[in-house]
Amino acid sequence: MSGQLSVIGLGPGDLAAMTAEAGSALKTAHAIYGYAGYLDRLAPQSGQRRFASGNGEEEARAAAALAHAAAGADVALVSGGDPGVFAMAAAVCEQIDTGPEAWRALKVTIVPGVTAMLAVAARVGAPLGHDFCAVSLSDNLKPWSVVERRLDAAAAAGFVLALYNPISRARPWQLGVAVERLRRHLPETTPVVFGRAIGRPDERVIVTTLQAADPAAADMATLIIVGCAQTRLVTRADQAPLVYTPRSFAPVSG
Amino acid sequence: MSGQLSVIGLGPGDLAAMTAEAGSALKTAHAIYGYAGYLDRLAPQSGQRRFASGNGEEEARAAAALAHAAAGADVALVSGGDPGVFAMAAAVCEQIDTGPEAWRALKVTIVPGVTAMLAVAARVGAPLGHDFCAVSLSDNLKPWSVVERRLDAAAAAGFVLALYNPISRARPWQLGVAVERLRRHLPETTPVVFGRAIGRPDERVIVTTLQAADPAAADMATLIIVGCAQTRLVTRADQAPLVYTPRSFAPVSG
Repeated sequence: MSGQLSVIGLGPGDLAAMTAEAGSALKTAHAIYGYAGYLDRLAPQSGQRRFASGNGEEEARAAAALAHAAAGADVALVSGGDPGVFAMAAAVCEQIDTGPEAWRALKVTIVPGVTAMLAVAARVGAPLGHDFCAVSLSDNLKPWSVVERRLDAAAAAGFVLALYNPISRARPWQLGVAVERLRRHLPETTPVVFGRAIGRPDERVIVTTLQAADPAAADMATLIIVGCAQTRLVTRADQAPLVYTPRSFAPVSG
Repeated sequence: MSGQLSVIGLGPGDLAAMTAEAGSALKTAHAIYGYAGYLDRLAPQSGQRRFASGNGEEEARAAAALAHAAAGADVALVSGGDPGVFAMAAAVCEQIDTGPEAWRALKVTIVPGVTAMLAVAARVGAPLGHDFCAVSLSDNLKPWSVVERRLDAAAAAGFVLALYNPISRARPWQLGVAVERLRRHLPETTPVVFGRAIGRPDERVIVTTLQAADPAAADMATLIIVGCAQTRLVTRADQAPLVYTPRSFAPVSG
């Protein structure tokens, strides 16, 4: 019997934002591996074993799921959002690249999902409506100087920025430094969006400006979108404003 | 009676890659607007009117859907992939920004979906496993010089690139020029992925290198991922290679 591994994107939090394909892959699995917080979202299913692990244990989790699949089981490994964006798919590929030869023979399926920047963008309008970059502010696995160089390059070239992993207990100052740095490139009025837990009871979305953006408003689960010079706000009487980046490069008049 | 507009992402093509939330919004709509090719994917539903339009008619389509919703209907406007990524959500926001005051009072919901770069990335591994940019190669709405400046900035700063709208009958040379330009910044062996119609019968995925990348392999529906210097290929005996970008900045040995 030959096993297989599915690396599954659960979407931003509300399971209604998960794809049908992801739901099917979860149902047929003998075992599910994942960060405890993600496993808690899934209804238990008889005959299905669960292996919860903590944040920061990505390597060990990927290796354990691969070893289990190599032993013949149909194994699911879940990620929040999309597994390919700052999540488990790269960790699995790294383990296959450097692990036992048998892991290269395994059938591995990546099931995409709605990543956080798409969910946050959808809540406020279309801030990613034109060219954009996704940058992780974590300097656990890359030097901070690389983060700064990328922020500078992206903002100077007019990309909208989606900032993942903005802050954590172990990385308390990086977001503040990043915001300071972006202020050198962009107008004070540039729209900034903080979004977390989209679709969940603790959802919170803040629309502010680069000048007023407060790093303390972010936590580990927050995704931040920083607009470009063209990004616009549309005020509405009884609703939150829309934030969008026009499809054309020239600023929309008004 | 007050109408509403839902701007819905259908995902990459196979409806199994659509979210449950998108499916529900489609079911309750009185009318569905969209590019004819997207409407054709949806099963007809009695009592639901359909308004198909051609490619390039985004403004008129957005305005028509808004006008219909303002008249009191529950209207759906569908997009391939995610509506917020080079798709209909920005067109709708533009129309609300510049259109009749009544449109600002409408309830507008954006339902996110799996955008093409996530679907293509999932098919080959995790090429977007680290910082990346999404760039539209279309110079219909922005000067080509802006596209070039962004490609240069992104590649020089080490971002992986997802290229949307790479080519069309009216834009035959842009992709070739873009690839030439990226060759100045990146090693010849940099992995490049061409992917189209993921999950559909005419799906095609090509894994190649920057040196060998052939613009003629792309069509209007193709999404191209160009790796960075760290992006790696994992060869496998009886399967296609995996392509991934490690989570850490230093190149993985091997």
